[in-house]
Amino acid sequence: MRDVCVIGLGLIGGSVLRAAAAVGRRAWGATAAEADAEAAVAEGFDASTDVEAALRRAAERDALVVLAVPLTAIEEVLRAVSECAPSCLLTDVTSVKSGVLAAARSFAPDTRFVGGHPMAGTAESGWRAGNAALFGGAPWVVCVEDDTELGAWAEVAGLAIDLGAQVVPLTAAAHDEAVARISHLPHLFAAVLAAVGADGGPVAMSLAAGSYTDGTRVAATRPELVRAMTEGNRDALLPVLDEALGRLGAMRGSLASTGGLAVSITSGHDGARALAESRQGTPSGVRVALDAPDARDGLRALGERGGRITTLADGTAIGEVR
Amino acid sequence: MRDVCVIGLGLIGGSVLRAAAAVGRRAWGATAAEADAEAAVAEGFDASTDVEAALRRAAERDALVVLAVPLTAIEEVLRAVSECAPSCLLTDVTSVKSGVLAAARSFAPDTRFVGGHPMAGTAESGWRAGNAALFGGAPWVVCVEDDTELGAWAEVAGLAIDLGAQVVPLTAAAHDEAVARISHLPHLFAAVLAAVGADGGPVAMSLAAGSYTDGTRVAATRPELVRAMTEGNRDALLPVLDEALGRLGAMRGSLASTGGLAVSITSGHDGARALAESRQGTPSGVRVALDAPDARDGLRALGERGGRITTLADGTAIGEVR
Repeated sequence: MRDVCVIGLGLIGGSVLRAAAAVGRRAWGATAAEADAEAAVAEGFDASTDVEAALRRAAERDALVVLAVPLTAIEEVLRAVSECAPSCLLTDVTSVKSGVLAAARSFAPDTRFVGGHPMAGTAESGWRAGNAALFGGAPWVVCVEDDTELGAWAEVAGLAIDLGAQVVPLTAAAHDEAVARISHLPHLFAAVLAAVGADGGPVAMSLAAGSYTDGTRVAATRPELVRAMTEGNRDALLPVLDEALGRLGAMRGSLASTGGLAVSITSGHDGARALAESRQGTPSGVRVALDAPDARDGLRALGERGGRITTLADGTAIGEVR
Repeated sequence: MRDVCVIGLGLIGGSVLRAAAAVGRRAWGATAAEADAEAAVAEGFDASTDVEAALRRAAERDALVVLAVPLTAIEEVLRAVSECAPSCLLTDVTSVKSGVLAAARSFAPDTRFVGGHPMAGTAESGWRAGNAALFGGAPWVVCVEDDTELGAWAEVAGLAIDLGAQVVPLTAAAHDEAVARISHLPHLFAAVLAAVGADGGPVAMSLAAGSYTDGTRVAATRPELVRAMTEGNRDALLPVLDEALGRLGAMRGSLASTGGLAVSITSGHDGARALAESRQGTPSGVRVALDAPDARDGLRALGERGGRITTLADGTAIGEVR
């Protein structure tokens, strides 16, 4: 099994280091955050604050380097990768993929880069919030571009599967559009609901029940995390936000004119049913041979259909789709 | 204890009948829905499909009449009340208060009407979904207008407290504005999120996690219930929807121009903290003597501050506010 070098030891990076070590991989980490490095060392992990030394070791041992730093620090770390491990196998775990892909091409052009995004997390952050089981059963997007080297892709997908996740192959652009809809827009909506609710004063807070507490829950997320994901995904988020504004504006128009909201509310009900149905039904098996000429198309089609890969064996990705 | 006559035996009405009987009140009910009446009788309750007979009995026994029919049926039932029990003690449990107040003044002008709204419920509906414990600890708005007769108000508040609820005194207008913020807008937002998410197809559904499932949960509510509450509260909901559109539009503008969302996201975070803080802190006791000249103002001020009344004793409303 390939060695793993994790840069950044917060919630996600710290969980990758723990989980990689737990499955028997040689794994080490480095972070600029002294507290995280100290906590990792205290728990017996191979960790330090010397990012460059960790990367040079990755180059020597041909390790897979996992960038788990905040989106705002990616560029700086890519420069260090380019200097210390210029042709390494490289992935990342940040929540926006097109921007990181462009940055990797600019700042670490000789690496074998494959973007990734494990869809797991908690409201907590830092090393102490992580655990080796964080990725169990979670979707982990591993990007497939037209020029993605499938050998490198299989290394990254293999790590995700080793760590308990299910791999969703998508282009960076498809990932960013999907998460704009199902993560970044919900965060913006929660922020607006929480602000409009609080503007109602103590009586509104006193009467708030399920629909409000559910709808505003993620507004309690640390603002810098929400800013990083939404501002970092601006290009994909803007058209999705416009769709939402269009739908809300249509509701406003109907309520003010005819007073009827049947169309809007039924669309939402249909959407809720689509989510429920996507989680039911019997999965059917899917196999994609990674050496086939259309392997990249096959992988992306699987991801677009909502499928996930659960095994990599003999050069074949094996998964299921509902 | 005063007798209770419940018209409408769905989730809320059925729970009122059960809970009133459970605390030892003489209670009977009637509903146009045969299945609900049969189910209630089968469980040993005094119920029928003869609404007029139930109302005439209420007039004879000077019972408190509780209207628990859908908002769209209120006018028809008020006409029956006016004919069969024209001067009865009357309340309702529907989710919009100004419209019902106006209808009661028009169609049953001689009743002693006090509007109410128990903030309890489940996604289910019908007699079988109800239970006697539904109102335990829940806020129950009991309306106080300038012309509200406080003797009638105390009868309605007393029933709510008997059934386990905590009474929030508010004008119909204040109630409608608060629920527009913390219930009706969240339902509209959930509908938009669910529609925009589903437009992302299977891949969006496959990647959907907590922020999306929380934000869209109430979009699965039966569309006719959501329509009744939102369309029925149009006057209060429109300005709140405009506030929300203004905030979302400002986000859109910031994201498209500077790309920064700090102000919007911080406002949402502040709102989430306001909700959390409203549920902490030590409550302080409050007493309002119902025969004081400014009793109505005192009650409404308590409700506006997020306070609740938990006891009625010797003509005094006793409660707490945080």
